[in-house]
Amino acid sequence: MDELTDPLLRGDRRALSRAITLIESTRADHRARSVQLLAELPQRQALRIGLSGTPGVGKSSFIETFGKMLTGQGLKVAVLAVDPSSARSGGSILGDKTRMETLTRDPLAFIRPSPSRAELGGVARRTRATVRLCEAAGFDVVLIETVGVGQSETLVAEMSDLFVLLLAPAGGDELQGVKRGIMEIADLVLVNKADGDLRATALRTVSDYAGALRLLRHRPQDPDGYPLALPVSALTGEGLTEAWGHMRHLSDWRRQSGHFDARRAEQARQWFHAEIRAGLLAQLERPDIIAILRKTGDDVAQGQLDPDRAATWVLEQLRSANRFA
Amino acid sequence: MDELTDPLLRGDRRALSRAITLIESTRADHRARSVQLLAELPQRQALRIGLSGTPGVGKSSFIETFGKMLTGQGLKVAVLAVDPSSARSGGSILGDKTRMETLTRDPLAFIRPSPSRAELGGVARRTRATVRLCEAAGFDVVLIETVGVGQSETLVAEMSDLFVLLLAPAGGDELQGVKRGIMEIADLVLVNKADGDLRATALRTVSDYAGALRLLRHRPQDPDGYPLALPVSALTGEGLTEAWGHMRHLSDWRRQSGHFDARRAEQARQWFHAEIRAGLLAQLERPDIIAILRKTGDDVAQGQLDPDRAATWVLEQLRSANRFA
Repeated sequence: MDELTDPLLRGDRRALSRAITLIESTRADHRARSVQLLAELPQRQALRIGLSGTPGVGKSSFIETFGKMLTGQGLKVAVLAVDPSSARSGGSILGDKTRMETLTRDPLAFIRPSPSRAELGGVARRTRATVRLCEAAGFDVVLIETVGVGQSETLVAEMSDLFVLLLAPAGGDELQGVKRGIMEIADLVLVNKADGDLRATALRTVSDYAGALRLLRHRPQDPDGYPLALPVSALTGEGLTEAWGHMRHLSDWRRQSGHFDARRAEQARQWFHAEIRAGLLAQLERPDIIAILRKTGDDVAQGQLDPDRAATWVLEQLRSANRFA
Repeated sequence: MDELTDPLLRGDRRALSRAITLIESTRADHRARSVQLLAELPQRQALRIGLSGTPGVGKSSFIETFGKMLTGQGLKVAVLAVDPSSARSGGSILGDKTRMETLTRDPLAFIRPSPSRAELGGVARRTRATVRLCEAAGFDVVLIETVGVGQSETLVAEMSDLFVLLLAPAGGDELQGVKRGIMEIADLVLVNKADGDLRATALRTVSDYAGALRLLRHRPQDPDGYPLALPVSALTGEGLTEAWGHMRHLSDWRRQSGHFDARRAEQARQWFHAEIRAGLLAQLERPDIIAILRKTGDDVAQGQLDPDRAATWVLEQLRSANRFA
């Protein structure tokens, strides 16, 4: 048994941090050890909540207030981020933690930013594993947050039990450019800043979204009225109890119908497939192969080599060197 | 030299058809021969025009009228389709040809439907190669058409010199649910059916889209005023000469600025990379591997195997069997 397994199962935060660092490492020995570690962990379930919101909607404040409410009920809360590196500046990792100052100091909370300088696929992979580590460490709720950039929302939804979309009050009646696909995966749309001068606008935005959500097909696995839109305020805390109530109601309903477990089973299968594809493609990221791809790619771009033939040649190189399939 | 090369270069249609069938084949010997054939072909350039339009906009009629106009000017026109199999019914391949009855009989035209029962990635691959065959056979214009489903539009844009979006006149002022991403890749938006009762609506739709296009960032490689929206009628032929004029103006401009060749060079590089990724992932489609993936995937879904560890095990199987990298 790995030396981290026991302290991890006891909920030791230092062991959890070290295990995540291990999982994030690309070193071959670390990778082997992390595969071993994950296989040793017993199945424990947290409620996995995906949370998306573009910058400016007050996501950090929401997580801080919502997280404190949960820890106030004695629940252990982990917050993980899934962001493509393009979406964050160098300093934002520190920034995240300082923006959630109170939650960071909470002994029942654990905050882990996205690994820096990583591809979205790699971040997704490691976050899935990190979620499992947090579950093993006894967390009750795992919040997986992402900015609404590219495919990150779909990836987060695919590793969550519930998907929550956080929005700001909108001035007009337009729907803030929210992609239709995101509306379709959202279980709950929360309109933040329902306080002070913005309260009326927030309520109007809620009803706009409630209308839009009604146009979407009802999901047979859910009770009537879902997905729904609610006003919340990270500042005053308004609506957070209600939002949490809906999250629990929806997840309890799905547990009873069997949909919860079926979804997790399908997610595990998808993870397995994604890992295999990632493993096959990973060999293209090795320095010797990168050099071949660059040189050959230049010849192809200059018209000196046919793309198809050049690809066949590179694949033959990979095969004849008996490199990892 | 392949026996098809010479008749192909002379523009023999039967040789072209046979070469395409060869390229579409998944048999290993056919695949090797088609790689060889493609590598033998000299670089000839047609204007590659991507064309997208959802069912109901009159795409077949547009292609028929537009194609006839081009062949009327003595130009050789090839029409290829890129559609995910989910987007077409079994009978639609025949349907395509019967809907373009006049063009099909035109000796200067060549129509080739999408291969049936194929993944989008596979269709894209073969279409790229088919475009090269058509160019080698002396075609002046290659129209690559797709229905607006999923990622097919992006794929078509990535293999085209120009991308044209065909729309129907819209009743209201809403923009027909056209994805913003598609608007961003369109060089020309054509509103069809600008005839009879729908003419006024079509003109209004054109000005709606002209407004929307102005909001998009101007592309530094293009002259002022592009991308633009125009009314056309596949029924009366109105606007087709003007549309073709704009396509030529835009492509001539890009040729002179060097953007045309730079784009083709980048496309060839992307094709090369895509072929390598496809080659690596192709081994997952072999019957023995599919069986392993299904069995192991079931165990993972049932919680009997850890996804990460199961993936590592499958990758080891692939490697130790010294299977194709």
